[in-house]
Order: sequence, then C-alpha cells, then structure tokens
Amino acid sequence: MFTMLRINTATGATVKEQANTREFLLGARTLSSRLVSREVVPACDPFGRQNKLFFTNGVLSGTTVSSSNRLSIGGKSPLTGGIKESNAGGIVGTRMAEQGLRCIALEDAPGRDAGWKIIVVGKEGVTFHDGEFLAGKGVYEKSELLVERFGAKAGCVTIGPAGEKLLLASGLACSDPHGVCSRYAGRGGLGAVMASKKVIALVVLADGDVKPEFVDSEVFKTGSRRIVKLLQENPVSSLFTKYGTAAMVDICQAVNVLPTRNFTHGWMEGAERINAQTMYDTIKERGGEGRTQHACQHPCAIQCSNVYPDKDGALLCSPIEYETMALMGSNLCLKNLDTIATMNRIANDAGVDTLDCGAAIGVAMEAGLAEFGDDQAAIGFMEEIRNLTPLGRILGSGCKTAAKVLGVRHAPHILGQALPAYEPRGTKGMAMTYLSSPMGADHTFGFTLRDEEVPTTKEGKVNLSKKFQVIGSRMDAMGMCNFVRYSVRNDMTPLLDLIKILHDVEISDVEFDDIVKETLRLEHQFNRDAGITALDHRFAETFYEEAQPETGEKIDITDEEVAEARRW
Amino acid sequence: MFTMLRINTATGATVKEQANTREFLLGARTLSSRLVSREVVPACDPFGRQNKLFFTNGVLSGTTVSSSNRLSIGGKSPLTGGIKESNAGGIVGTRMAEQGLRCIALEDAPGRDAGWKIIVVGKEGVTFHDGEFLAGKGVYEKSELLVERFGAKAGCVTIGPAGEKLLLASGLACSDPHGVCSRYAGRGGLGAVMASKKVIALVVLADGDVKPEFVDSEVFKTGSRRIVKLLQENPVSSLFTKYGTAAMVDICQAVNVLPTRNFTHGWMEGAERINAQTMYDTIKERGGEGRTQHACQHPCAIQCSNVYPDKDGALLCSPIEYETMALMGSNLCLKNLDTIATMNRIANDAGVDTLDCGAAIGVAMEAGLAEFGDDQAAIGFMEEIRNLTPLGRILGSGCKTAAKVLGVRHAPHILGQALPAYEPRGTKGMAMTYLSSPMGADHTFGFTLRDEEVPTTKEGKVNLSKKFQVIGSRMDAMGMCNFVRYSVRNDMTPLLDLIKILHDVEISDVEFDDIVKETLRLEHQFNRDAGITALDHRFAETFYEEAQPETGEKIDITDEEVAEARRW
Repeated sequence: MFTMLRINTATGATVKEQANTREFLLGARTLSSRLVSREVVPACDPFGRQNKLFFTNGVLSGTTVSSSNRLSIGGKSPLTGGIKESNAGGIVGTRMAEQGLRCIALEDAPGRDAGWKIIVVGKEGVTFHDGEFLAGKGVYEKSELLVERFGAKAGCVTIGPAGEKLLLASGLACSDPHGVCSRYAGRGGLGAVMASKKVIALVVLADGDVKPEFVDSEVFKTGSRRIVKLLQENPVSSLFTKYGTAAMVDICQAVNVLPTRNFTHGWMEGAERINAQTMYDTIKERGGEGRTQHACQHPCAIQCSNVYPDKDGALLCSPIEYETMALMGSNLCLKNLDTIATMNRIANDAGVDTLDCGAAIGVAMEAGLAEFGDDQAAIGFMEEIRNLTPLGRILGSGCKTAAKVLGVRHAPHILGQALPAYEPRGTKGMAMTYLSSPMGADHTFGFTLRDEEVPTTKEGKVNLSKKFQVIGSRMDAMGMCNFVRYSVRNDMTPLLDLIKILHDVEISDVEFDDIVKETLRLEHQFNRDAGITALDHRFAETFYEEAQPETGEKIDITDEEVAEARRW
Repeated sequence: MFTMLRINTATGATVKEQANTREFLLGARTLSSRLVSREVVPACDPFGRQNKLFFTNGVLSGTTVSSSNRLSIGGKSPLTGGIKESNAGGIVGTRMAEQGLRCIALEDAPGRDAGWKIIVVGKEGVTFHDGEFLAGKGVYEKSELLVERFGAKAGCVTIGPAGEKLLLASGLACSDPHGVCSRYAGRGGLGAVMASKKVIALVVLADGDVKPEFVDSEVFKTGSRRIVKLLQENPVSSLFTKYGTAAMVDICQAVNVLPTRNFTHGWMEGAERINAQTMYDTIKERGGEGRTQHACQHPCAIQCSNVYPDKDGALLCSPIEYETMALMGSNLCLKNLDTIATMNRIANDAGVDTLDCGAAIGVAMEAGLAEFGDDQAAIGFMEEIRNLTPLGRILGSGCKTAAKVLGVRHAPHILGQALPAYEPRGTKGMAMTYLSSPMGADHTFGFTLRDEEVPTTKEGKVNLSKKFQVIGSRMDAMGMCNFVRYSVRNDMTPLLDLIKILHDVEISDVEFDDIVKETLRLEHQFNRDAGITALDHRFAETFYEEAQPETGEKIDITDEEVAEARRW
C-alpha cells in the first residue's frame, strides 16, 4: 500500500489515504499527472482554491538505486496555463519515502490576507508554523533558517521572493544533500502556486523510519549494482560524469543549435570561452570548494552536478547546467563563466527559473534595453528580478510575457515556457518535441538531437520525437533521473527487475510504456480542457518567416505533424 | 460603386478596387469585420505581415446627417487575440468620403529595420513621406506637426509613443474638427498594429471633391431633420447634450455598479465630487476654453463631448467621458476631476486607451504599488506610461497583462480587454454582454443597464443582452454614433429611409438586422479560428467567488448561457 497525505492549506485539516494501484506504485509523474488530471479543474485560476500541488516520489525512492530519488511536483501551471510536472534532485523524495509517503498534496487556499506558513511533515504528524520570518528573504538565507530550525537533513521545498510575488517563472527550491535548497523544480511557475496557498516552505523531517521492504535484498543489491555499471559504461552519462551537462556547449555549437542572440542564431563566436573544458579547467584551477563531479542526490553514479567557485575558491554557484549556460550565456552573447555563475546564483536566490529568465533577458536585449554581450547589464537584469522592481517583474514573468510587454515578436517559447538550449530551426527533431510537449518547450522530453542524422530536416522527425518522448518520459514516470535513460533506452529490464524485486510486482516493458503513453494522453487532454488549442503548439511567427543564418533553415513543421506527434 | 484603396506598407504598391455589395454599401463595421474575416489569417501574429488594418466609413458618411460620420478601424487585435473593430468620431470618415473612399486598407509590413513613414491619401493619389520627425513625440505635438504639414482640415490618424513601442493598450488618435488628434479608436491595441507596419500617421487630405449624389436632396434634408428632431426629443440623448456621458456617474452609483477600488466595489463614497453636475459646474465656473456641449464631428445634434478647462480656463482635456471618469476615477478611489482630466490628457498624449490603463492602474494599486485614492501616484503611473518606463510598459499593456506581471488575481477583463465602467456583479445584463462580445468587454455593445428591471439577477438576461447586442451593433454596422440608437431602437425606418434616398437601395429592417447578426457570427468564428475558446469568455475566477459588498452578488452566469448569448 502507498500513502498520500492531503493537507488543506486553508483549514489545516490533514488526511492520509492509501492506495495500491499502478499509479501509486510508480509515483512520480505517473501519479502527479493523474492526480492533477482527476482533481484539478482544468479551467481554474492556477492561483485559486481549485488548484492543487502534488509532491510525489518514485517507485525506487528510499532505496540505494542510483539516481532514483527525484521529486516530482504536479499542478496547473500559471506559466503555460496547462498541466505541469516539474522534477528536481535532492533529498526530499527520500525523506518522504522514510515517512512512508508516496505523495503530499497541498490543497485549497486561504484568503488573501492570510500570513505565510511553513508546513512540517514528520513522524508525529503535520504541524503548521508561522513563516512570516522567511518572507522577502532570498532562498539561500531561507535555506539557512530552515536548517537552523529543522536540521540539515530535513527535506525542504521553499520559494524565493519571486515566488512570493507570484512571478510566473518562479520555481520550487528543494534541499540538496548539504541542506541547501538549490535543486530546482524550476519550470512552469509552481513556486508561485505554492505561494498562492500561502505556504512559504514545506518541510519533511528526517525523523522517518520507514525502510524499503525487500523481497530479496541481495538480489536487489545486485540489480542496483547493474544500474551503476550501465551508467559507468555508457558514453553519454560517463561524459556527464566528467564534464557535467556543460559538455553540450561544443556539441550544440558544432551543429548550429547553440541559442545565440535571442534565438536568432545557432552559433556563437567564442563559445569555447564558456564550454565544458573551460569550465572544467576553471574549477580545477581555482580549487577551494570547486567540484567538477558532484551528486545532487545520493546515491548517484553519474554525478553530473558541479560546484563553481569564485576566484578565491569559495562557492559561487552549484550547480551550473548547460541549459543555463546557453540561456544566460550564448543566448545573450555572454562569454564569461563568472557572469553566468553570478546570474545563476541570483536566479537561485530570487527563486526563478534560469531558462525562462534567460530567455526573457534575451527578449529585453532585443527590445534594446541593453546590448547583447553586456555582462554588467545582464547581471543588473537579474538583480532587478531579485529586487522585484517593475523591470524585474517583467523579466521574472518569463519570455512570453516579457515579449508582450516589451513589444518583441521573436519570443522563444511554446505554451509560454521558454525554449531550452537547442535553437529549433537547426534541429527539427527538438523543434518537433518542443511543439508536442504537454508541458511547453522542455529539454527533458523527447530529446532527439543525438539521434538525428540530419538535424535540419523534418523528415522522419514525428516518429523520432515520439520515440524519444517515450524514452524520456519513462524516467519521469518512475522518478529516475533523466540521464539514466541513455543506459536503458533499448532495454528497460534492469529497472523493471528492480521494481519486481522491491515491490513484488511484475510490469512488462509493454505495460510500462502503455502507462507512459496514457500519462501523455491525460496531460494533453487536461490542456485541451484548460483551453489550450493546436494554435498554442506553434512557435512565434518569426521562426517560420526568418531563416537561421547558419543553416538557412526556418521552421517548416505543420500543425498536422504536431498533432500526429501529440497523438497517443 | 464603392471604392477600397489598398496600400502595401512594405512595397508601397497601391491599388483601388470597386464593389457594389451590401457590405460596401453599409461600410463601417459591416465591412471591416467582413474584410478581416476574409483576408486576415486568424492565427497570425497581430504584428506580422499577415495582419491588416481596414479604415472604413459608413453608409451616410459625407452627408449632413447628424452623427453619421464615424470611422471604423478593423484588424486582428494584439490585446484580445481576436477580431477588432474600434471606432471614433472626428473628421477622417468625412475626408475619406470626399475622396470617394469607403475603405483604406493597410496591408503587409516592412522589415524590422524600416523607418517610420506617413501615408498620405489625396486627390492626386497616395504618397509616402518620411515620418521619423514624428517618432517619440506625444500625440498633441504630432497633431500640431501634422496640421502644419497637411493643414487643419486634413483627416489624420496617428499613434503615440506607446503605440510606437507596440504597447497592447495603444490606440489610434483621429483628427477632431479642430485638427487635434483627440478622437480615439482606443480599444484593442490597434495603434500598435499600425506601428507594426511602421506607419506613424495616415493622412487623408482635405482636397477631395466627391459629393453625395442625392436621388432627391430635398427629401433627404427632410429625413435628416427628422433624425435631429428624434435626437433632441429623446430623453437619453438630450441628457447627454447637457451633461455628456458624465451623467452616468450618478446613475451607476445609484444601482451599485460604479466600478470602485479595482472593481471590488460598485459604490464609492464621495462619488458626487466627480459626477456630471460637478463637472458641469466646474466647466461653467472656470469658463475660458471650457465647453459643456461640444461636437466630436459635424454635424451632430447630441454634442455629448466637452472641453474640460484647467483652473485658468485653458484646455486641459477634451473630451472627458464617463468610462474614463470611472476607470481612472472611482475605480482608483480618486475624487478629483482635475486629476482625472490630467490623467486623461497624459493618456491621450501617450496614445493609450484610458479604460485599459485605468484598469491596469487599479490592478497596480491592488498589488500595493500605491494606495487607492492617491492622486499623485495615479498621475505618476500615467507619466510612467508616457515615459515608457518598465512600469509604464506594464500598465500600458492593459490590465490582464499587468495582473499577470504584478501577481493580481482580480483582473477586470474579458478576452484581455478591460471591463468598461459597469461593475458586472451588480448588473448581470452588462455582465452577460461583456462575456458575449467578440471584441472583449465593451461598453458600446449590448448596453442593457437602462432596461434591466432587476440588474442583480441573471434571469432573462441572455435575451435582453442579445436584444441590445443587435440594437447597439446596428449603429456600428453603418458608421452612426452609438448614441443615436436610443432614438431608433424601436424603429430603424428613419435611418433606412435615408439610405434609400441617398443610395437608391431599399433595405428592410429585417434584412438589416440579418446583416448585423451575420457580422457577429463572422466575428465569433474568426475568434474561434484564432484559438479563442469558451473558457476565454469568462471573468477572472474571483468575480465568481467573491461577492460585491453592496449587493452580495457574485457572477453566476454559466458557460452555457454565454454560449447562448453568442449564438447568432
């Protein structure tokens, strides 16, 4: 049996429910999207009483299987207007497992004058604490105060000042293994949804003592080691072990899909100044707290995270991911890792998604508010967000709204969510994936780029995108890190075996993929019921009209092709 | 035969087309909405090459019939995302008639680096002039420069700095009889659409010499005098003659529908300080350039416009309308006519709609950016718009976008267009009309308030709204001022007779209403094709959840009722 804890944020009432269905077994996005689909009125105001937030862990949560402890958070997104599942590493999923919880649901919303509160979930039950002392503080300071109060091992989910003000690009910051809320469920504005319920932090205490019950623990250990071996032997995940996701800079530059100058180009002169090798060398050279190989959760055999130090070796930002390096780097024609790290740090402190804010700054630069390549201006924009100035609020609303307010047509988003770091005119597979995602443009979904023989052509890309939509979604479906997919894309047996050993439940690969596809079907249906139409699954008109200079390519994908790529 | 002049704003090519259909005969919204419906791709970017702007005059344009010379402007709205017809008084429609034109179409769009131009239409043809010298200037200064260049009798349509920057609430300012561009086609952001085509002014010279050909000019004169008599005898239009639309302040206050404090209330203490009598007395007392009875076009037997003077009797703003007095007055808890006039003047100079900006300021006050009732802050907000600061851009994007950026749930709009000055929970007829309009919330459409026996109940309001949707749309359909409707609501014969005499075409009242209804059908169809769904035809959720304090009423209208009120 799996347990869901429902917490009414208006009345304080709590209730535990138990279920033993496949969806509760798998947890993660499989569960959160079904709950959203079933319990949230699609047309509701995301900030109103009818929206809910579901925090779910996955089928292997609480075990020692590498990369299996991600936390999924589902609800209606104020950014896209549709369903959202956003997930993060860190320790919250594990803490939930130790409390015997598969899901925590935040429901209802108090009146507009209610004060901030902290909701604490522990062995003794749920308690509500005054959270006013956290209000207005940055995420780093909030983290420290939460650790002080609840211990470094507590799993916390908090929001930044941006979330408190309901900015659409605000994320949820989750505790990493060091007790810092630096692992972001960044996309879709779910930070603002938690804020709309006047919850400034959700804390899962480390006093849980529920342990996985193994059918056969030795066999499980063997299966778990098999995952580690697969990850270590796989060329992609082992590349990430050395360089982190920064390895993508050179790969994308080579095929003209490195977003540059507000997604008008796919190639940047001087990209090597922000590539993986430069980052690696900088971290090694500066030493101190710097780390090139670093885990966002334990255990993890990939350890793609990093700690980027300042000139004196003190922690500047952890982690710095490729998506941020592109959206806050090349997309703004910035070529200085320290600038990117500083912007990333401010974003983490403000509590906003680096992608949506990077894209919004690109739009602001196109609108003429600063020159592309101006490091100080870019950092200044991030400070505006952190300080919640009017300009900061525009930028913290994501690139779609920023483009509306600033009069820019070339707005890089789908469903209001900024494009990730692959310029879509240069990769029609990724373009197809962006267009087809129920979550808005998303880099963890249907990642085709490595498997496109000719990235610039759309031939065959409907099927390629759909293939990888399933491959990627398998990981979300069970709370695994997305990077495990490289090792099991052709054979899910190693993971399905572990489920069998742990839960005594046999799921075939066909049945598993059916569940994954049903999730996508439900998500698209939610969106339709929320008023999202086929026309929302388009790029800005300029992507169809203006060719990417490097490749001469425009978006040439039709509504019919997108419809086909969304049909499950 | 009626003539349409097409102007390609990218190539400079022009072409004249002739037609003799009913739609060209009636002109105005009948024609503009059909042209938009037929020629504009519904899903297009409103600022892209596929959008068009149609300027049409009406069936009695160029004649001496009272209030018959309004100018309609149609296109796809960047504010609502749907079809738009916005109309204004002034002299441009007459100038077009004198040039023998029923319609001027601005098509295509030049590249993003094109400079500003002025398009001049005259007897000798179309010429393009460099318009860079107008860029960045306020509408008042632009007006003066246009008069200097093209004469006080030229009919000009221009935009303010807000339009130049593509702000969504920017309007089109049209010449009044004194050569001042102060008659606004304010709603729907069409100013930004003209800007997107890099047209900073459209000028119709006064050198036209086409005169109406009368089948029988004496009979026409008699028919025309009949209209004047009807207007003078009608209690509503004669009330407007004395007091202007300001008369509505007391009427709305009396039935608790005066928008107050960001549409959270329907009644304001001290409303008498901004009512019609106070305005009348102030204007009379100050004298100077002040006028209580003033025509926006010639001839007009109503003359509801006014000239509001400052303390020294110099023109401060002309006109001040009830909608502005409520949205920039009571809605912000402001009780000083000088403040409202100042804000209105700045709006006119910036080139923005007073309703959408007033509503956006209400949202900003609710967000805590200033206190309700703070005159200086309110004027300051307007200056931010005029100066195009980040906060000004937020506010100039209208209340929907401002609410998104500022984190306010109670956003008073339908389809992104701010509610006019009737708090909808207190008048379910107007609420039904707002919800049903293809243009977004609109005060010139389906005006039920005067005919609601019990405004707070929704019973019978579907039919009442539909009845007045037709009555109001008849005026738009032929380019008449909306206030003529009071005199012909039960009998259109006086107007249909004039059409017969002037054009030798007989249109029955049934046929006429069929044309009106077909226009509505086409408009809703365009919107559906543009991705607008039934869910967009709803108020913000708070209007359904929170009762208006004065009446205890919430919005209780269902999607089904709205669908019925939109079925034609």
